[in-house]
Amino acid sequence: MLGSTHGTLTTDSRPARVVACGERPTPAVHSVAGPRGASDLDVSGRPLHADVPDLDKFFRPESVAVIGASDAEGRPNTGITKQLIAWAERVGARLHPVHPTRESVFGIPCSASVADLPEQVDLAVLLVGNPLPVIEELAESKVKFAVAFASGFAETGEEGALAQARLTAAVERSGMRLLGPNTNLNAFEKFRDDLEGPAIALITQSGHQGRPVFSMQEIGVRLSHWAPTGNEADLETSDFLSYFAEQPEVGAIACYIEGLKDGRSFLLAADHAAQRGVPVVAVKVGRTEAGAKMAASHTGKLTGADDVVDAAMRQFGVIRVDGLDELQDTSALLARARKPQADGVVVYSISGGTGAHFSDLATEAGLKLPTLSQAKQDELHEWIPSYLNVANPVDNGGHPVGDWRGRKIIDAILADPSVGVLICPITGPFPPMSDKLAQDLVDAAEQTDKLICVVWGSPVGTEDAYRKTLLGSSRVATFRTFSNCITAVRAYLDHHAFTDGYRSPFDEAPRTPSPSFRKAQALMRPGQQLSEHSAKQLLRAYGIRVPREQLVTSAAAAVRAAGLVGYPVVMKASGAQLAHKTELGLVKVGLTSASQVRDAYRELTDIARYEGIKLDGILVCQMVEKGVEMVVGVTHDSLFGPTVTVGLGGVLVEVLQDAAVAVPPFTEDHARAMLSRLRGAALLDGVRGGPPVDVDALVEVVLRVQRMALELGDDLAELDINPLMVLPRGQGAVALDALAVCR
Amino acid sequence: MLGSTHGTLTTDSRPARVVACGERPTPAVHSVAGPRGASDLDVSGRPLHADVPDLDKFFRPESVAVIGASDAEGRPNTGITKQLIAWAERVGARLHPVHPTRESVFGIPCSASVADLPEQVDLAVLLVGNPLPVIEELAESKVKFAVAFASGFAETGEEGALAQARLTAAVERSGMRLLGPNTNLNAFEKFRDDLEGPAIALITQSGHQGRPVFSMQEIGVRLSHWAPTGNEADLETSDFLSYFAEQPEVGAIACYIEGLKDGRSFLLAADHAAQRGVPVVAVKVGRTEAGAKMAASHTGKLTGADDVVDAAMRQFGVIRVDGLDELQDTSALLARARKPQADGVVVYSISGGTGAHFSDLATEAGLKLPTLSQAKQDELHEWIPSYLNVANPVDNGGHPVGDWRGRKIIDAILADPSVGVLICPITGPFPPMSDKLAQDLVDAAEQTDKLICVVWGSPVGTEDAYRKTLLGSSRVATFRTFSNCITAVRAYLDHHAFTDGYRSPFDEAPRTPSPSFRKAQALMRPGQQLSEHSAKQLLRAYGIRVPREQLVTSAAAAVRAAGLVGYPVVMKASGAQLAHKTELGLVKVGLTSASQVRDAYRELTDIARYEGIKLDGILVCQMVEKGVEMVVGVTHDSLFGPTVTVGLGGVLVEVLQDAAVAVPPFTEDHARAMLSRLRGAALLDGVRGGPPVDVDALVEVVLRVQRMALELGDDLAELDINPLMVLPRGQGAVALDALAVCR
Repeated sequence: MLGSTHGTLTTDSRPARVVACGERPTPAVHSVAGPRGASDLDVSGRPLHADVPDLDKFFRPESVAVIGASDAEGRPNTGITKQLIAWAERVGARLHPVHPTRESVFGIPCSASVADLPEQVDLAVLLVGNPLPVIEELAESKVKFAVAFASGFAETGEEGALAQARLTAAVERSGMRLLGPNTNLNAFEKFRDDLEGPAIALITQSGHQGRPVFSMQEIGVRLSHWAPTGNEADLETSDFLSYFAEQPEVGAIACYIEGLKDGRSFLLAADHAAQRGVPVVAVKVGRTEAGAKMAASHTGKLTGADDVVDAAMRQFGVIRVDGLDELQDTSALLARARKPQADGVVVYSISGGTGAHFSDLATEAGLKLPTLSQAKQDELHEWIPSYLNVANPVDNGGHPVGDWRGRKIIDAILADPSVGVLICPITGPFPPMSDKLAQDLVDAAEQTDKLICVVWGSPVGTEDAYRKTLLGSSRVATFRTFSNCITAVRAYLDHHAFTDGYRSPFDEAPRTPSPSFRKAQALMRPGQQLSEHSAKQLLRAYGIRVPREQLVTSAAAAVRAAGLVGYPVVMKASGAQLAHKTELGLVKVGLTSASQVRDAYRELTDIARYEGIKLDGILVCQMVEKGVEMVVGVTHDSLFGPTVTVGLGGVLVEVLQDAAVAVPPFTEDHARAMLSRLRGAALLDGVRGGPPVDVDALVEVVLRVQRMALELGDDLAELDINPLMVLPRGQGAVALDALAVCR
Repeated sequence: MLGSTHGTLTTDSRPARVVACGERPTPAVHSVAGPRGASDLDVSGRPLHADVPDLDKFFRPESVAVIGASDAEGRPNTGITKQLIAWAERVGARLHPVHPTRESVFGIPCSASVADLPEQVDLAVLLVGNPLPVIEELAESKVKFAVAFASGFAETGEEGALAQARLTAAVERSGMRLLGPNTNLNAFEKFRDDLEGPAIALITQSGHQGRPVFSMQEIGVRLSHWAPTGNEADLETSDFLSYFAEQPEVGAIACYIEGLKDGRSFLLAADHAAQRGVPVVAVKVGRTEAGAKMAASHTGKLTGADDVVDAAMRQFGVIRVDGLDELQDTSALLARARKPQADGVVVYSISGGTGAHFSDLATEAGLKLPTLSQAKQDELHEWIPSYLNVANPVDNGGHPVGDWRGRKIIDAILADPSVGVLICPITGPFPPMSDKLAQDLVDAAEQTDKLICVVWGSPVGTEDAYRKTLLGSSRVATFRTFSNCITAVRAYLDHHAFTDGYRSPFDEAPRTPSPSFRKAQALMRPGQQLSEHSAKQLLRAYGIRVPREQLVTSAAAAVRAAGLVGYPVVMKASGAQLAHKTELGLVKVGLTSASQVRDAYRELTDIARYEGIKLDGILVCQMVEKGVEMVVGVTHDSLFGPTVTVGLGGVLVEVLQDAAVAVPPFTEDHARAMLSRLRGAALLDGVRGGPPVDVDALVEVVLRVQRMALELGDDLAELDINPLMVLPRGQGAVALDALAVCR
């Protein structure tokens, strides 16, 4: 089982928490985790629901012990102790210093050891170099949570990793949950409590990398939590993700991820957030990882480890961004903006050039800029000179400042039912105009549920209209660049479109083996690559069509087989460990007579003998033409397990690498979406007057391959259908060749 | 002739200006415009050198007239007049107001008309509603330059366009150069004269869109010029581009372009800048233009108008960016950074996470991050704890602040010969450390010619280390986002790589027609689409190989032709206006016997009769297999004229649209670069054990097609070789089918 190995505190019979959405619109929740049982595991034995830890007492403890507290001048622990005392005061927790020799620390009475603590504490902060023995003491005192700052564990190499494994084992025995080791004070920083509205919760695997998001408090964006997960010996990114998704004050979760501890846990946590409509925005390092491009099959080479991360995030609605600036801007917008009432975007600008430029970039990024109705344009022309274009972008030729007209224009745009978002790019400050424009936008935002965005393009950024008016509003989303605004708005509209119709694919994941499974098991040969013939039998077991074919071991049998299969036929050498048959000349196509079949039999066996290849026979197969060649396969990802790939086939598969990958479980809709993402998707609609192909049959094959991946699990190391000939609509799809490797 | 129609002030015999590069490293200038003559035009009659206007007296006039000057309260001209007076004082120009009734304006004596001006002025600023009559008066007074602010011209529609055409005609008659109409005060703004180092010169077609670059003066970046080109009735973007490229104080030219007046002038101006090593950074609106995807040929559909703009900019080294923030950051870096001594980039960070993240994004963007030598790593470990990784990224675990060690680390990195650029991303301010780090970087930058970049990731931006230390340095390039830093550094390294080896393709452009030209002319049929047979003769005229083939008009002749051509043969219907033969069933391949040829002849003529298609006969052609199918063609772009496209052929051309386009003239090297940009480029290296194809022959075909495009010019509306079968290396390339449309 690949699932999380934690959970000693959360019992199997714990009911799901009631979701309180407070400041967020209540999302449609299609799946709620019920009591754990057999049905909580899929056919491969993996969990189907996030195991959500209760971290309330971690973030809001009533009492805290600081092990290794100090007030001695110059000791690093002194500064940390001071900050912890200040934090405990802010959150109203009783703080107990622990030190073997001191009477008191900063005037607070000290306990000599954990056993001497005056009460059972919720949280222990470990400032000691070796947290292992302390964990064992804490376990006896039934402490709920611990944080270990010490470094020198898995981040330093093999020896450290061993020490960390011992720590993990001790934590698991203890029933306690641990943050760290190699973490820091970030969870205990000062959060501004004067900011309003939904907040960002932050999860980072590096304190420095979280700082820009945390600093957004200084420009008016509310933060509610920061989980610096460190080495994740116990509590991991996914635990905080699913916990934060349940907190009513959290509007969005921002993550900085270097590596995931467990793929399945992450998917379940993301699914948990998606079901609750809570947006997750993540930077995941690893775009340039060499990845898993070492597989034997073609499909295995099509996608690297980062493609799989990308696909997994897309499947569960996690918004992946590249830069920390995008992480800031996108998570701030998603946390604070209300649900869109329409997906139309209007660009309102004081310059035709600015409007044209912004619209060009927005349209290219896939935003919809509806042309405003003639009636709406006539209305706008009451306040905007008639020679200016107000169709969208709306060019006001200079925002009116002397009276109420500027506000009228903004309100009139917002009142249009096609408009969900108004974006006003202000490229340069011209205080007599831009001050009033900024104020009108802020005022209008207070009175609408629609989203208003401003791009403040000045590189200076000290202007009052920016710092006071715009940043002073929690209703206007302010950006510094066109591209960050467009990225965030796109993510905002995509997120709501995604969660509105979200159904957890885990709900549909198979829980029991299909009848195909037993048939398939009998064909598996652990540690071996199956012959083409056996691999095709495996496909047949799962209802995937293969050509009529016979395996023969003599020329005479070949001729008989050809008669049964029907001319013209294809003949191929068949044997375990045999790949790249075409390059070796071990495939003969278009054979139309008995004599050609006899010659081909002789030639194929000659080549095999010459090359020293052991054959189990020659396959005589029905020849299938007139379709589009695709590839469908299964590859193992070290993080997410079996993945399913579908791509453009034929000789071009190696050159263009046009493929889409997904991590099971995924739905039929998602399988269709994978096809539409292919660059060569238009091939499926037919080319040069050819008929459209049987996309339904192709999707069915992808889903059956997913079933194989789920049921055969780790036993099926690789599967490669190449090519899968997809025939014209209504005629199905046939696996012409297959490669399967058993583990 | 498509070239610029201006130039009455610049005589044909004017020698080229001597290039003074001053603050920039002197570039290698391979081509210098000589006296104009026949050799200054290419074979199509277009100019081969930029026509550089002398705008010294425009930007630094000795005397200025302001026509329509005012000091009456509340009139818009009053504010403008005031600003012009202030500007004239700054640049030391004598200013003369002109007004029919006033004695004086702001105390300066007024002339009643242009004829009454006390001296011959260099520049006249026209604040009048109708500039046309004034232009005529100014012409008599031999005024060199005029600026017209009036709007209501081409930007308002047809009537305005006619008024603008009259204005243009008057300007051409006058011998004067005009900026505008519909321009503004941007050229006369206050430029800070306390900033040092090479400056940005700015060209914009919208004042608002230029503001962010201009505002960079407030954060310490020097600006030297701003040309707000307005409607470009006379002076256009290209004129300022080539003029600015000659100014010694200009380190880079930043452009905001909505539309280009003339494609050729732009290419010549960009070539002029490239020869002088002056970087040009441009935003060009139009990414989402529907473009020219309306052509009849396949290649014509492969690329839209924006693809051509993109290609043209790439050919001449213009760095195209999307956002104004990128325009700011990239042009500032390129203006100020010295020539790189190496292309290696080292990331220096105070956090392993930040280093890993930045390196990931930088590597993905194509920057080279060399692994530092063991000796260099040992040296760095003198000051950095041994457990930290210093191979690149260099993780210092916290920049040392107490002593000289921080500076030692920076200097040691910069001393490495593989290093051209040091980038230090600082994600959050921690003043005790980041203040010293910023200062060390600024100090180090003063003592190196290598480039030091800092990314200040805090969203706040009011910190002293950022505002005072970093922005106070003209040697450190400071960014706010990872991506803008990476984009700018990539552009910096690319620019120098491009200009170092730059040879003007105009030097190699043909000046006289080739012997092929007359042969080709005889085949052209104005207004018609040629038959396949004629189109192939056109190709043969230019030395492009076509299959052995004969055009026959009887079954018996077809059999005789097949005998001569050699079996197997292909037979195709041939006729003018005949396209999409395959879809209509008008192609028969793989015919191996006389009887098959006879049958095919009958079938093809039957189909044509049935479909009502007029044939000039049936082509019996040699069958060519075993190659890679490509397409090569010519399409007309409304801005740049004939363009050459090369792409992946066969049935996939329509689906994948994998093609590269170029505007002639381009060099053989560029033709090769076009091939390597194809997504399917690997096909040319051979697939599935197949041999590599004859790339040299493919390049030769592209160059011969370019020659056709240049010589036949507008007479050849479209040419489409589809497919061009590129055979294995050493065996050439054969045009299997061709379509040509004459204008």
